[in-house]
Amino acid sequence: MNETTVQQSLHQALDSEQLELVRNLLQELHPSEIADILESMPGKARETLWDLIDPERTGDVLSHAQDAVRAGLLELMRPHEVANATRGLDTDDAADILQDLPEDVVDSVLLSMDSQNRERLASILSYAEDTAGGLMNTDVVPVRSDVSLDVVARYLRKLGDLPQQTDSLMVVDRDNRYMGLLPLASILIKKPEITVGEVMKADDGIAALTTAHDVAKLFEQRDLISAAVVDENGGLLGRITIDDVVDVIQDEAGQAVLSMAGLGEDDMFGPVLASARRRTVWLGINLLTALLASWVIGRFEDTIKQLVALAVLMPIVASMGGIAGNQTLTLSIRGLALGHLSKANARSLMIKEGAIGVLNGLLWACVVSVIAVIWFKDPALGVIIGLAMAINLIIAALSGALIPVTLKQLGIDPAIAGGVVLTTVTDVVGFMTFLGLATLFLVPD
Amino acid sequence: MNETTVQQSLHQALDSEQLELVRNLLQELHPSEIADILESMPGKARETLWDLIDPERTGDVLSHAQDAVRAGLLELMRPHEVANATRGLDTDDAADILQDLPEDVVDSVLLSMDSQNRERLASILSYAEDTAGGLMNTDVVPVRSDVSLDVVARYLRKLGDLPQQTDSLMVVDRDNRYMGLLPLASILIKKPEITVGEVMKADDGIAALTTAHDVAKLFEQRDLISAAVVDENGGLLGRITIDDVVDVIQDEAGQAVLSMAGLGEDDMFGPVLASARRRTVWLGINLLTALLASWVIGRFEDTIKQLVALAVLMPIVASMGGIAGNQTLTLSIRGLALGHLSKANARSLMIKEGAIGVLNGLLWACVVSVIAVIWFKDPALGVIIGLAMAINLIIAALSGALIPVTLKQLGIDPAIAGGVVLTTVTDVVGFMTFLGLATLFLVPD
Repeated sequence: MNETTVQQSLHQALDSEQLELVRNLLQELHPSEIADILESMPGKARETLWDLIDPERTGDVLSHAQDAVRAGLLELMRPHEVANATRGLDTDDAADILQDLPEDVVDSVLLSMDSQNRERLASILSYAEDTAGGLMNTDVVPVRSDVSLDVVARYLRKLGDLPQQTDSLMVVDRDNRYMGLLPLASILIKKPEITVGEVMKADDGIAALTTAHDVAKLFEQRDLISAAVVDENGGLLGRITIDDVVDVIQDEAGQAVLSMAGLGEDDMFGPVLASARRRTVWLGINLLTALLASWVIGRFEDTIKQLVALAVLMPIVASMGGIAGNQTLTLSIRGLALGHLSKANARSLMIKEGAIGVLNGLLWACVVSVIAVIWFKDPALGVIIGLAMAINLIIAALSGALIPVTLKQLGIDPAIAGGVVLTTVTDVVGFMTFLGLATLFLVPD
Repeated sequence: MNETTVQQSLHQALDSEQLELVRNLLQELHPSEIADILESMPGKARETLWDLIDPERTGDVLSHAQDAVRAGLLELMRPHEVANATRGLDTDDAADILQDLPEDVVDSVLLSMDSQNRERLASILSYAEDTAGGLMNTDVVPVRSDVSLDVVARYLRKLGDLPQQTDSLMVVDRDNRYMGLLPLASILIKKPEITVGEVMKADDGIAALTTAHDVAKLFEQRDLISAAVVDENGGLLGRITIDDVVDVIQDEAGQAVLSMAGLGEDDMFGPVLASARRRTVWLGINLLTALLASWVIGRFEDTIKQLVALAVLMPIVASMGGIAGNQTLTLSIRGLALGHLSKANARSLMIKEGAIGVLNGLLWACVVSVIAVIWFKDPALGVIIGLAMAINLIIAALSGALIPVTLKQLGIDPAIAGGVVLTTVTDVVGFMTFLGLATLFLVPD
């Protein structure tokens, strides 16, 4: 596996514009490696490389690229090129690509296909991208439960080929209703005269409208490699294979990290203007938070004028609260995503996080008190900052546990909004307690 | 799939202490579901439920639990109980569990096993947990390349059973050196008289010392279900199956989110003292950052005394820089993790992010300027804060791109340290430019 050397040679060949060499090197790489290289390239270089890829492999490369990158590449292609590219792909991969295109382009791509593929694709496209129906592949090999394993074996030999990642056949009754799985291993190890019905693993299949998130969870819990997708009457529609589920898991994990930072896209070299526009919304929302904090500080202008040390120390109280709260927040958001946190145990979590908040609050209150006393030679100021710090760290811990659960109940994604709400709380509480206590006890009226 | 109802009944039965009912309900749940329920329970309730689980299923439940939770449960067990629990498991799952135990316990567990299992386990345990060797399972079914498919089919029928998730057999030569994969599908569809060597997919296998991260990447890129693990001489050691790889992907994704918040553990209900201790280190590090920022503010005490509006507005400059920088930082850390960002294209990323920084910097500088002028009726103050804001947002974008790459070169995990370093930069630059410019242009000496 000499990928890195091939990739280095590729970059060198691109830089020195030896296009023929680039074409040859591309042939040595796996489509997913080409997709990775495309993703690591800024706009113009990406287009240059894209044009050099063997048209027969563009479909495979597209199906391995991330959504944002793929959308950019598709814009460079004409409908008939897209149709050609999707021809050799699994139907689920082809559907993935078509789901990114405007409807008129999809129609002309579908028209340029043969009728069997068109029907299969249309059946996948009728489901949303993030459901079992949208994830499924229609290339199932169904067998009837009342035939013997010997008949199945002879049928397979006649078929001469099986779809990729087939570890089981799908068992159906006369009306194409799904009954269970027949592992290939069973055909090989069981007696030939036994019927399919006797050795199959009875199973309900996954309903086509199940969300991709729940599908991933089922695969993970049951250690599945493939599973049947059924319609509301139990009719067999297709199958989902583990490679598609791995993509779902990867996307979800990435999306969680990105949305916490207010990033929607996942393309390191997406267009500057579009990126700037998306991020600026996030900056605007955060400006409101910052303005609210400033407004709180503004209420205490007179106090600060009399004791400037307050202005020097106040960011410490706010920022330590933010850090402590964010630890609890991250744990809660993850607990919600994994299904470990719900209304039922939210109280237990608050108690535990509150206890940690008290412990760490007291510890760091003492440390910061001592620092403040040494720095400003003012014992009363030390007591005040310690008190404010302890209060803010405890409230931060409780908010970190409470905010995600509350947001989820309101139908807001905690991964997106949790951080802003928490920062608002820790900033406002931090500045208010510190400056408020100082106004009450430190500064003469 | 009526899991939720079963889970609700379980919680009710636990609350009303109907222990026999709990035992019965547990039998209806999949081990992975039981693991999920355990993870969502605080300490004492967790121990109560654990004691009610059928001892024959504890091994399966343990193998589905997260590391931190598993470690807690293992502490409740005696060595012979652990040995019993691991008996029915796949060797890789058993190894996973043993890797969490102190050496003397591992030794007594190994001693209580039969010699074949002991040798297999010992071979996995000799590799680090996060390598291909540590992930592998030793239950491979090897076949020789010079026999016919018919012979393989008869051998399998005699064997009568195949390990779970077997989609391929491993082809070896006379010296047990790995040659390639024989998909079960090939045995079924190809002519019986053909030899294994003619239909196998030639393959090098994965070296035992390959990191888990690289293994996951290979599986994802190649859409693999299982792969052979080989020693330095190409000898077949075992195989890795996709379910273990899914666990790696899940763990890595979770770890990235957790380490950004300075959380090492992944147990929502871990012991309070241990959690508090781990998090307090993070708070300490962040206190140093906050103190540095305060020290910068302290340099400008006189300026603030003369114009308290500066103290009111300064958090806005720092916090907007932090938010903007964090967007770039998140993108870069993710790019590094996915292998899309390296020294080669770091410059391109800095140019792109710098451009976004300039655009958003100018936009929000104008907005904040206007707000400051309206609020404090001081046009000069508006110009100063706008200028400071633009500078900080541009520097934040450049730092967000540069810091992760630099940290990685220094051998420091950017996911852990990136945020602290960035906040230090945006705080210091934000306070310094805003208060510095104000000292130069606004306040009379």
